[in-house]
Amino acid sequence: MALILALDFGGTKLAAAIANLGSSEWLRYERRLSPANTDAKTDLEIMRSLIYSLLQNIKPTAIGVSFGGPVDAVIGTVRLSHHVAGWENIPLKKLLEQEFGVLASVDNDANVAALGEHRFGAGQGYDSLFYITISTGIGGGWILNGKPWRGASGMAGEIGHIVVDPAGPICLCGKQGCVERLASGPYMAQDVRENLLKEPVQLRGHQGKILRELVNNNLDLITGKVVSEAAAKGDERAIIILQRSAWALGIAIGNAANLINPQRFILGGSVTKSGENWWNVVQKTARETALPEIDFDIVSAALGDDAPLWGAVALAESGL
Amino acid sequence: MALILALDFGGTKLAAAIANLGSSEWLRYERRLSPANTDAKTDLEIMRSLIYSLLQNIKPTAIGVSFGGPVDAVIGTVRLSHHVAGWENIPLKKLLEQEFGVLASVDNDANVAALGEHRFGAGQGYDSLFYITISTGIGGGWILNGKPWRGASGMAGEIGHIVVDPAGPICLCGKQGCVERLASGPYMAQDVRENLLKEPVQLRGHQGKILRELVNNNLDLITGKVVSEAAAKGDERAIIILQRSAWALGIAIGNAANLINPQRFILGGSVTKSGENWWNVVQKTARETALPEIDFDIVSAALGDDAPLWGAVALAESGL
Repeated sequence: MALILALDFGGTKLAAAIANLGSSEWLRYERRLSPANTDAKTDLEIMRSLIYSLLQNIKPTAIGVSFGGPVDAVIGTVRLSHHVAGWENIPLKKLLEQEFGVLASVDNDANVAALGEHRFGAGQGYDSLFYITISTGIGGGWILNGKPWRGASGMAGEIGHIVVDPAGPICLCGKQGCVERLASGPYMAQDVRENLLKEPVQLRGHQGKILRELVNNNLDLITGKVVSEAAAKGDERAIIILQRSAWALGIAIGNAANLINPQRFILGGSVTKSGENWWNVVQKTARETALPEIDFDIVSAALGDDAPLWGAVALAESGL
Repeated sequence: MALILALDFGGTKLAAAIANLGSSEWLRYERRLSPANTDAKTDLEIMRSLIYSLLQNIKPTAIGVSFGGPVDAVIGTVRLSHHVAGWENIPLKKLLEQEFGVLASVDNDANVAALGEHRFGAGQGYDSLFYITISTGIGGGWILNGKPWRGASGMAGEIGHIVVDPAGPICLCGKQGCVERLASGPYMAQDVRENLLKEPVQLRGHQGKILRELVNNNLDLITGKVVSEAAAKGDERAIIILQRSAWALGIAIGNAANLINPQRFILGGSVTKSGENWWNVVQKTARETALPEIDFDIVSAALGDDAPLWGAVALAESGL
């Protein structure tokens, strides 16, 4: 029986699992948080220990890898990680092939998750789709003609850095009004926090009551999740920031529909758990931005946190 | 010798030509303006007369058709024309196949022009490209993996209606700040005209001197071309409007590069003849909008007004 080894280098966590070819259940599964201030070497060592614990002297038939950062998928070399030091130009495919003696396929997490949803999740039966993860960062992966579309230099899918509001706030990338700047969890948290700090002292604890209570008045604890919770409880400022997130993503999806006309958009990541209002604004804005003749739907990802691992299985399969 | 018949239903003009398979020179070529207030039936009759005049009793091997409006390319049926009445649901492929007894392939002008540039023009040797026409309207056609990408319902490439400035002026489509609203010839002319009309009477003929002279003070004669000419002669308001056109297109190209990462963008259409400044702003804005890791270039179309006809040849070839 052919055995697939799936690996997920996630930036803050590492996961590995094995499954029989064609199966949609794991045989065994291991998951570990990366240590604080980890580096590429440490993460690779932890992953090796996970793999040997999983395999127990069995040899896999093929290896698929999801990596949290830009990858040259053709040669399987990591370009860099935005979260972990020391990953520049690490030939991950080659390292794994040398150690385990079988074919290894490596791609970035958004492309791999797109493949996972296409093969095992919300994209089954869809020939063209765009998977978008809205979390700490925002990225995406295309399936066109039933296959990953990676772009001429493997950089397609960077929906987080398309500009939707040229008068908007400045993003880390230097531009104004990127989708990621408006819609990602950490930026929503930052904007709510700064907004609270700007309040006149005599009003503090009044207007921001709901938010302050959720974090025991420690504004550093505000996250994207806290913003969603405060919005659900009726905090006006959180509602505005959350709606702006959904609006920015909706414009981006509508623009992508006009440009590429895929059948389906699949949304995953923590921000998609922000509730019905967030989803309604995304749906409505995307529908209004796309031309009326352009059909598409927008659905929730089905595989959750396991999308990269299942995608890694699909990636390994496609290499066989 | 296999003979290709290429047809271009352009909205205001009709063109037909024949070429030997594999050749890049026309054997014969006919071109006619559509009559004022023409309709589908009249344009079809004129096109038939052009075809019979070209063919002179020879039978073509295949027919390729470029149509100026949305087409269902799979069944070769026109959806509608935005310029000429009566085209709704005309089965153009079927009509031509019945009359001439050979395979006919039909697609919209932007897709066909993209194919033409890919096969015979500025896109030769490029596996992924986006052709954009910036003229009365703004549209585009994708080549991905060396083949046309039309989208799930044949509507891909609508770059004219992606939103780049949500606070911008209202487009005919109902949205604010579409690329077409900011960058197309007629809208540039409209904005310059309205801007001139808003001037206090005592200033008329002073600030807008260059523009007014170019149209003998008849503001209805202002076109996109006039705006370019006035900008070249130093008219400040024309310069601002023309730069805004280039800026909007640059944002759209940068966003498309982030999403799809094609090797090359090819720009055609009358507005691309607006001079070096326009091109510089397009290039600069697109480069700044795309992530630094994303490589692409932006070049001028090579086939000019004949791009749809040469594309029709390539379309007919690909059907053989």
